[in-house]
Amino acid sequence: MSTDDTTERTETESSCGASDTSSASKCGASTDDRPETDTSSCGASSDDTSSSSGSSCGASSSSSSSCGSSKRETTDEQVEATVEDFEGEPGRLLAVGLGPGGPEGMTRRARETLLDAEHIVGYTTYVDLLPDEVTESADELYDTPMCGEVSRTEEAVDRALAGNDVAIIGSGDPNVYALAGLALEILESKGASASMVDFEVVPGVPAAQSCGARLGAPLVNDTVSISLSDHLTPMPTIESRLHATAKEGFTIAIYNPWSRKRRENFEKCCEILLEHRDPETPVGIVHGAGRDDEQVEIVELGELEEYGETDLVDMTTTLLVGNEETYVWDDRMVTPRGYESKYDY
Amino acid sequence: MSTDDTTERTETESSCGASDTSSASKCGASTDDRPETDTSSCGASSDDTSSSSGSSCGASSSSSSSCGSSKRETTDEQVEATVEDFEGEPGRLLAVGLGPGGPEGMTRRARETLLDAEHIVGYTTYVDLLPDEVTESADELYDTPMCGEVSRTEEAVDRALAGNDVAIIGSGDPNVYALAGLALEILESKGASASMVDFEVVPGVPAAQSCGARLGAPLVNDTVSISLSDHLTPMPTIESRLHATAKEGFTIAIYNPWSRKRRENFEKCCEILLEHRDPETPVGIVHGAGRDDEQVEIVELGELEEYGETDLVDMTTTLLVGNEETYVWDDRMVTPRGYESKYDY
Repeated sequence: MSTDDTTERTETESSCGASDTSSASKCGASTDDRPETDTSSCGASSDDTSSSSGSSCGASSSSSSSCGSSKRETTDEQVEATVEDFEGEPGRLLAVGLGPGGPEGMTRRARETLLDAEHIVGYTTYVDLLPDEVTESADELYDTPMCGEVSRTEEAVDRALAGNDVAIIGSGDPNVYALAGLALEILESKGASASMVDFEVVPGVPAAQSCGARLGAPLVNDTVSISLSDHLTPMPTIESRLHATAKEGFTIAIYNPWSRKRRENFEKCCEILLEHRDPETPVGIVHGAGRDDEQVEIVELGELEEYGETDLVDMTTTLLVGNEETYVWDDRMVTPRGYESKYDY
Repeated sequence: MSTDDTTERTETESSCGASDTSSASKCGASTDDRPETDTSSCGASSDDTSSSSGSSCGASSSSSSSCGSSKRETTDEQVEATVEDFEGEPGRLLAVGLGPGGPEGMTRRARETLLDAEHIVGYTTYVDLLPDEVTESADELYDTPMCGEVSRTEEAVDRALAGNDVAIIGSGDPNVYALAGLALEILESKGASASMVDFEVVPGVPAAQSCGARLGAPLVNDTVSISLSDHLTPMPTIESRLHATAKEGFTIAIYNPWSRKRRENFEKCCEILLEHRDPETPVGIVHGAGRDDEQVEIVELGELEEYGETDLVDMTTTLLVGNEETYVWDDRMVTPRGYESKYDY
């Protein structure tokens, strides 16, 4: 969990491969009409699992192998099959948020949705986190590593259009830097519609809240979430958002604070926050939440930048920056909601 | 669900009563040392249930009957028992988020925590939503209506200090305008500590995300949550936060948009948003999410203020305001994450 499965992570991994345990997929797209695709590249290659059989329904397999590459470099990643390529009745498409990671953080609705799904599509790490009862009940699992969220999402869409009930999964919530929007955009680009596949979002606990829980009560007042990844949002926009919100007393949940390619965004973020907030402002650092290497620390804003040099801050880390009133007590971060201004306790 | 159980709602209800099914509570506070309290007022009165027996452990029952009243008027709501008043080993205190309301929106961890809890404390509406297996397994349920979240939280703290394993519940997440912070503040004010009661937060799906799911994908980029209640935050601060974030392209989740006493905050909010955003900006209105009277509508920002005159916008409503790029497609709100700038699909 911690950060959701977003494109940011894809910047740090340059080799991609998709695994697919499929054997009897309903694939309605009439392949005669589809452009030829390079099935050996990122998104549908089978280089890391023995059970894989390549992309089965969609035609989304021709993305560049460099995830952080520019549009110009990735023009071969195109929507291939359109709604006309599929015959028969479409299935369903559900974007399911797993929450903090393990089965205990999943809602009952998410669990039941996954048990009902014929196909489950997701980032390998999250597919691996699914409980056995879920993976065993699915007809097919299709997972890809960090790269390829566009091709993976298209694969899910195509499988649904081909008549399968498909769940596309991610950690956290499908609305928080995640794939609910991309699924709708790809449906639209194919000339399909959301209603056609009964598109639904099954919400999950976002990283900000599952990390907040580990820290105590850092986020009980007005809060903003900002991703430091400039892969899809220009850095000047991110900087402007940090300035605007640091000035206004929001607590700030920072997603994707760090990657091998984006050290300077984190440094810039620390500088901006220090322009508006006291160096002693508490900052919660949650690394690898729900994973074996989970670490939780509360530090001061003035020393945050130094932590960028440690293993504590990486792409699995979420930062929760306190506001002017946040304090640390008994190893917990507490942001008062304001009750003390009305009540004596 | 929708808005969490926060003090905002308390402003709309002036009569308060607590119900308590307790019969064998461990109450460690030595009452001799405690100041006399008015147990007939908000927080511990038993005017609306036949099974109630008044506040059993804490001494928090003397709050004013007007929830929105000023500090001066509520100085009789004080922390009464301190840690010295309790003998023996403290129990545990867990702040549990129920998520969107019904059992299907609860995480497995929340469900298991509630099944293990000896006492469950919460706002009556949420206690009523608990599945039978949970309410039947608890030794005691203590619920109060809208008023009295301070006294209710103190009751939970006192019960934990008295040796019981206590879950204090709310819809959504305990960190989102909810009681995780208040529980820590009250523990501190009593001279106790979080560690003493193994204080833990069990996160849940917040209203923004469960409402977002109903609307499609309105929140997949940087997002802010702002409460329009000026009960605990001054209105000029709220206005300043709206200006700052509406300017910066955040999607905005608005909690507590409306109450009988706070019509003008909603109107002011609409005005501010229109200063910075196009009147055609989509706004998702989710009323009574997860309740029998649930209604979901997507309207334009320019007409939002008129909806304030309808039943659609009240204290059970959450508003999700799109950013400059948000659009409506097939009855869904879609906020692009930015993939279209990098990929062709």
